[in-house]
Amino acid sequence: MSKSIKHKSSSEQVVDIFSLDNKIRAMLIFESALAQAEANSGVIPKEAAAIISQCCEESIFDAKDLEERGTRAGTIVIPLVKDLISHVQEKSPEASHFVHFGSTSQDVLDTALVLKLKEAISYINLELERTENAFSKRAREHSGTLLLGRTLLQPGPPISFGLKAAGWTAAVRRGRERLNRAAEKALILQFGGAVGTLSTLQSNGLKVGQSLSAQLELPLPDAPWHTHRDRLVEFASAVAILVGTLGKIARDISLHMQLEVSELSEPIEEGRGGSSAMPHKRNPVGCMIVLSAANRVPGLVSSLLSGMIQEHERSLGNWLAEGSTYPELMKETAKATSAMLEVSEGLQVNAKRMRDNLDNTQEMVFSEALAAALLPSLGRKGAQEIVTQLVEEAITRNKPLSLVASSNAVVTDAINIKDLEHVFDPTQSLGSTSQWIERLLTGEAQD
Amino acid sequence: MSKSIKHKSSSEQVVDIFSLDNKIRAMLIFESALAQAEANSGVIPKEAAAIISQCCEESIFDAKDLEERGTRAGTIVIPLVKDLISHVQEKSPEASHFVHFGSTSQDVLDTALVLKLKEAISYINLELERTENAFSKRAREHSGTLLLGRTLLQPGPPISFGLKAAGWTAAVRRGRERLNRAAEKALILQFGGAVGTLSTLQSNGLKVGQSLSAQLELPLPDAPWHTHRDRLVEFASAVAILVGTLGKIARDISLHMQLEVSELSEPIEEGRGGSSAMPHKRNPVGCMIVLSAANRVPGLVSSLLSGMIQEHERSLGNWLAEGSTYPELMKETAKATSAMLEVSEGLQVNAKRMRDNLDNTQEMVFSEALAAALLPSLGRKGAQEIVTQLVEEAITRNKPLSLVASSNAVVTDAINIKDLEHVFDPTQSLGSTSQWIERLLTGEAQD
Amino acid sequence: MSKSIKHKSSSEQVVDIFSLDNKIRAMLIFESALAQAEANSGVIPKEAAAIISQCCEESIFDAKDLEERGTRAGTIVIPLVKDLISHVQEKSPEASHFVHFGSTSQDVLDTALVLKLKEAISYINLELERTENAFSKRAREHSGTLLLGRTLLQPGPPISFGLKAAGWTAAVRRGRERLNRAAEKALILQFGGAVGTLSTLQSNGLKVGQSLSAQLELPLPDAPWHTHRDRLVEFASAVAILVGTLGKIARDISLHMQLEVSELSEPIEEGRGGSSAMPHKRNPVGCMIVLSAANRVPGLVSSLLSGMIQEHERSLGNWLAEGSTYPELMKETAKATSAMLEVSEGLQVNAKRMRDNLDNTQEMVFSEALAAALLPSLGRKGAQEIVTQLVEEAITRNKPLSLVASSNAVVTDAINIKDLEHVFDPTQSLGSTSQWIERLLTGEAQD
Amino acid sequence: MSKSIKHKSSSEQVVDIFSLDNKIRAMLIFESALAQAEANSGVIPKEAAAIISQCCEESIFDAKDLEERGTRAGTIVIPLVKDLISHVQEKSPEASHFVHFGSTSQDVLDTALVLKLKEAISYINLELERTENAFSKRAREHSGTLLLGRTLLQPGPPISFGLKAAGWTAAVRRGRERLNRAAEKALILQFGGAVGTLSTLQSNGLKVGQSLSAQLELPLPDAPWHTHRDRLVEFASAVAILVGTLGKIARDISLHMQLEVSELSEPIEEGRGGSSAMPHKRNPVGCMIVLSAANRVPGLVSSLLSGMIQEHERSLGNWLAEGSTYPELMKETAKATSAMLEVSEGLQVNAKRMRDNLDNTQEMVFSEALAAALLPSLGRKGAQEIVTQLVEEAITRNKPLSLVASSNAVVTDAINIKDLEHVFDPTQSLGSTSQWIERLLTGEAQD
Repeated sequence: MSKSIKHKSSSEQVVDIFSLDNKIRAMLIFESALAQAEANSGVIPKEAAAIISQCCEESIFDAKDLEERGTRAGTIVIPLVKDLISHVQEKSPEASHFVHFGSTSQDVLDTALVLKLKEAISYINLELERTENAFSKRAREHSGTLLLGRTLLQPGPPISFGLKAAGWTAAVRRGRERLNRAAEKALILQFGGAVGTLSTLQSNGLKVGQSLSAQLELPLPDAPWHTHRDRLVEFASAVAILVGTLGKIARDISLHMQLEVSELSEPIEEGRGGSSAMPHKRNPVGCMIVLSAANRVPGLVSSLLSGMIQEHERSLGNWLAEGSTYPELMKETAKATSAMLEVSEGLQVNAKRMRDNLDNTQEMVFSEALAAALLPSLGRKGAQEIVTQLVEEAITRNKPLSLVASSNAVVTDAINIKDLEHVFDPTQSLGSTSQWIERLLTGEAQD
Repeated sequence: MSKSIKHKSSSEQVVDIFSLDNKIRAMLIFESALAQAEANSGVIPKEAAAIISQCCEESIFDAKDLEERGTRAGTIVIPLVKDLISHVQEKSPEASHFVHFGSTSQDVLDTALVLKLKEAISYINLELERTENAFSKRAREHSGTLLLGRTLLQPGPPISFGLKAAGWTAAVRRGRERLNRAAEKALILQFGGAVGTLSTLQSNGLKVGQSLSAQLELPLPDAPWHTHRDRLVEFASAVAILVGTLGKIARDISLHMQLEVSELSEPIEEGRGGSSAMPHKRNPVGCMIVLSAANRVPGLVSSLLSGMIQEHERSLGNWLAEGSTYPELMKETAKATSAMLEVSEGLQVNAKRMRDNLDNTQEMVFSEALAAALLPSLGRKGAQEIVTQLVEEAITRNKPLSLVASSNAVVTDAINIKDLEHVFDPTQSLGSTSQWIERLLTGEAQD
Repeated sequence: MSKSIKHKSSSEQVVDIFSLDNKIRAMLIFESALAQAEANSGVIPKEAAAIISQCCEESIFDAKDLEERGTRAGTIVIPLVKDLISHVQEKSPEASHFVHFGSTSQDVLDTALVLKLKEAISYINLELERTENAFSKRAREHSGTLLLGRTLLQPGPPISFGLKAAGWTAAVRRGRERLNRAAEKALILQFGGAVGTLSTLQSNGLKVGQSLSAQLELPLPDAPWHTHRDRLVEFASAVAILVGTLGKIARDISLHMQLEVSELSEPIEEGRGGSSAMPHKRNPVGCMIVLSAANRVPGLVSSLLSGMIQEHERSLGNWLAEGSTYPELMKETAKATSAMLEVSEGLQVNAKRMRDNLDNTQEMVFSEALAAALLPSLGRKGAQEIVTQLVEEAITRNKPLSLVASSNAVVTDAINIKDLEHVFDPTQSLGSTSQWIERLLTGEAQD
Repeated sequence: MSKSIKHKSSSEQVVDIFSLDNKIRAMLIFESALAQAEANSGVIPKEAAAIISQCCEESIFDAKDLEERGTRAGTIVIPLVKDLISHVQEKSPEASHFVHFGSTSQDVLDTALVLKLKEAISYINLELERTENAFSKRAREHSGTLLLGRTLLQPGPPISFGLKAAGWTAAVRRGRERLNRAAEKALILQFGGAVGTLSTLQSNGLKVGQSLSAQLELPLPDAPWHTHRDRLVEFASAVAILVGTLGKIARDISLHMQLEVSELSEPIEEGRGGSSAMPHKRNPVGCMIVLSAANRVPGLVSSLLSGMIQEHERSLGNWLAEGSTYPELMKETAKATSAMLEVSEGLQVNAKRMRDNLDNTQEMVFSEALAAALLPSLGRKGAQEIVTQLVEEAITRNKPLSLVASSNAVVTDAINIKDLEHVFDPTQSLGSTSQWIERLLTGEAQD
């Protein structure tokens, strides 16, 4: 496909971003920027910083070997810094003294994580915007397309498909905005040294931190946050809530795609949605991927929340766990985002079938409206009784409720025929639908 | 205690708020305000509204009976509305036609939940502010009180207790602010009728919604949100993150309270912290309550996130589950908040013991600083080797590292005695501590 | 209903079992049995034991007051034992010395919990057995009732409804058996004193433990298990897995109940399954309750698993949390069990509609079988191509696949008409169905 | 190290087992065995089976390419089977008709998962047995080594370190046995075709299943279990409970390793437990890895439990999610197992420090015993009062409680000096300790 030539999906991008190679690269970006910041602040010689940065850019690191040694050491930073020092030492023994100067493993890993999260959401954001646009377009097109409302998986009064799509649009938009608000607070520099005091830098800590912050284009927080993970967990929660919203939409679409319902369909593409055993299948593969992510993400966030209990200045275990949880979280989220993008842009709407399904309810879904119309004349009890009786009759005789009602003397005595027709006119039953759609799509509550 | 006479803890308040009686009361507040809003909008007669409101205020409802019938019906709203209608009917058959008019069970329950959450966090907020103040005061008092930094539950270079307390202060403040931001978005009116269209109200839905919103002092959202729970789950996440922060602090304090550490102590009060078996115990009961909440809350949020997958216009099961999860979540949160308030206001700081524990490390915690000081003369490898050797000697001979170092010729050749003293002077090792404290307490990153 | 006169549902029973009153009662049962066991072992005077037991049986305890004081003390055992001592003291100061002798709060609370869990599952078990029987009966009745198989929410080849019901039966049976296996291991005496050594009882600990075990009809474990919660969490997991199975069944049934599918229906009863707004509704209320439980339970188990990290001899926080989590877990489980019992015993099966839905697929679901039949003559590629073409034709022309196939020369050249008919005969497509049913219902894999 | 030459850790093994290459290999083992089983049962020609099996063994598959195409298709089985067919076709067009015959993607993936889980736990088992032995040895060695009991992170009466180690031993053994019991039930063949009926195999399904079961050495279950995941989730729960137990032990050890406590130490090895910033550190790296796993695993199990709600004959999303969750679960578990093995085999016990810490409590931990000894003479109230007073005096004067008590006339009037000495003799305070140790280590409750 030409599309896939042009750009990768966020799902593919995020897999790349969290590869071992890119993880190491992000850590070296930190070490390089740290050397520059320290040189800028007069803490280390500019020549040393130049050599360190040069070595950080050279691809001399053996990722697999680092990973293995890192597992034993408890963190990959230890062998990485060791190898970086050796490498710098070959060029300048003196410069090697200033590698990783004043910093600690967690500074490196947290900042590297933040850099990767920032990159990941830039891709996710683009896809979310396109998804919003796709759904918004459907909402406008189908603002008046009647659709059976469904509650507790049973039929209810009609809505329009446009209302449903507008609801999806607004929820995705809120999800994106929430994500970006949380990112702004959470994606910040980590820099504190062994216990957060930057003691090795003596009085220069803040100055170096400011320069490092500028280098990496990451805000400098009030103070190091080694064991205060609240901002990051807020980000993770925002991600999870987004996935929850995508899951809700995927659940809806997959239910609409059931053969017996057939109101919506995912786009059918080569190599997608087939079955190894059943050639006729049109599987909701995009929805499946989203729902899979929606199953996995809450448990991941639960680990991050539990993991907030981090001891003293740097914690034992809970912080290490984050290093495995965040990549999983972001990969699942990107998978869900990319899948929903494809679903939204190619969504096939069967308006005729929507109307047929509505008609097939034999107008039972207007029973509430009928009872309301009869209430002034018959009182609540009387109205309820006659409606219950009419519904049973309609079911037994397999006739539309309007027909049964209009041939019932109690009903025709109670209301005139025009009001009765009004009750059963689905176009009259949309209530505030058009106002909701407008408010949902514009994102402004205009009242 | 005079304190408990003056006011209840948020923990007690929240238990009250989520009692069955208050749940029913909140639902009746909705029904009453609905009638008023519909009368204001000309949808129902003012007289009917007056009678309905009057009946809502009368305590004629049998909570236990409603609960039981509600369990069978699937929701308590069905028997409640039924009983309300009967009650109104006794006063005015006509007025009874307008009870719950145009609304659906979920409108009632969601709005009642929102009202209760709003009340709950008003109490929680007050206690959080006091907790911040208490910790902030300690941070100022102890800005220079030396304390062993601890990483991975092992000793590290010193920090000050003020820095730790300032970190707690800022985290609680962020937690409170996050909660309030989320509340502002989430605690909104739910009003949509059976499928979200307010079809029974025809063209008056928005108008009634606006009036109802004003009556209940809850913002009117863009549209009903029966199956879009993202705003509410953001609120729940904010609550959970707050509890995570309180859990981190409780973990810290309980570790500092270990007899072998004895640097901090919860306040000791009559009837608190004792043991049924051991009269000598000074148990960290406040921390225990917080840590218990911190264990429970992540699982509750995980359910809420999983539960976002809500089908179509109103969901089957996942929404019902929220009705049990939110009260649990808020009770645990209030318990944690009230417990941490007591801990923070009565926290006993043993500055002498902090210094003793630091001194008992035999200055091992300065090994990093020593290596840094020796590096220019000895190179990295040389510095590391001599420091490792000195540390081992200090351990074996049970002597302070400074003493072992100052009697080692390699060291004394490499640096002069004044620089060596500087390495081991803990007051010199606080680096950026005072700047961090200022930034943490003022909440402004001044750079 | 006569049924509800005869006995309460397990859901109601479990609410009772975990009431505050019954919690206190269970703790007093422990204290009474402890006194008896210690008298039997010659550790305390028989007279003292008699008085203590008598006081334990008297309803003199103020539950609300105990709860309140317990909250402050960290555990309700402290005020309860205090009040019990006062009460015994009034009758015999000497006997009061032997109240709670050698025991610790956690002994009381853990054993009380175990007693309540044991009672709870006795009720749950009875309902599960009835549910199995109900499903088993349907499985036999409908062993040959054709039903569309559905994969990824899309139609597949036919199965029989009997196979589905037999799958449910066996899963419920496995759930029950797993629960009982886990209960046998987990529901054991807790008795260890302050740190698990029963030091106060000197050399009599084991003897008293054996007698106490006999009194309470709870097995005596190898040793106290204050901070080793694995057996209890295995029990909780078994409970959760059972709820997961019930959730799977409820999801299935609720999907079959969709109006567009209408293959199954929950029983309709007075006061159940209606809607406050829509009189025509037949809501799957039983399934809803089960699915609500299935949403809540995984998060509760996740807390219990996280909570296994219990420090030293008795833990801070995580154990306390269990005291709130287990009652929630058991109440949800009992709700799900009772709801599924009603659903299973009253399940309405619409065999005609099952057949209609199968026929409405236009035989697409036999495309796999058709391809297989054509494969020997046409090769895989040829078979796939012709089947894809026929499926498209059937869709476009809205004709059964058999009709389209039998009028296609490639097909009729490739296989004879009898084999073709065989392909489209749903009764021929059940494969191993009857064998699976037999194996599932008998619980024996007969091979 | 010679050790690492001899064999890989289970952690390394499990990473291998779940590599993409081995995943594909396991799927090909299934396809090969399926062909053989079908040939054995006379369903396909023996020659075809031979060619298929040969092709399955040839390493012609491009893992990365398959993964990518699999992502689009919804499952990797689709491109794998496609490539296998192409490959077989080159050798024999006819044989290619019989590739994957009668099977479905989920049969392949579930059985491949089961094969991998089986291999994974074989390695984990071996390490668990060694861990049990290591702890058991410590338990015997230190059966009488006095250790401060600790409850709520505060000191309690003494236990022996042997009792603690015996408790760990028994918990690990239970964890292993539970895992193996669950594995026996869960690690079974999946084979059901598209909807579980094996319809393509007509009447031969069971026969082929039996032969396939024999080939793969996996038990044949009662019926396919595509959407009944209870047995597998029981396995996952058993895994998680094991990790919880390892986490409890790791928490204990890391607390004992605090410098202020210094009672235990992980083995120190080259490249392990150091710090990038602090050369003096002896970090509990093994415990850290275990605690990290213990943070992650509950959330993963929570996803699996939520994921049990699988629709109809094969589910949408929840099953797909398992494919990512199980590898994570097993990798974390193996990491925890391997780490705990190293910790257990190299654990350093500082018995002298244990005794010192006990003595440093100034005998406060005997306050319960003292109160018990005074109770007969002074009554409960009198005993409590005098003990509280003595404890305060001991704290204020920083004297051992025995000294303060023996110079108090009330005490010396109440009990004779020998009984008083007995109270403060820690060797007299172990109660049932030796019996518990015996029962815990032998795994038999001998009563």
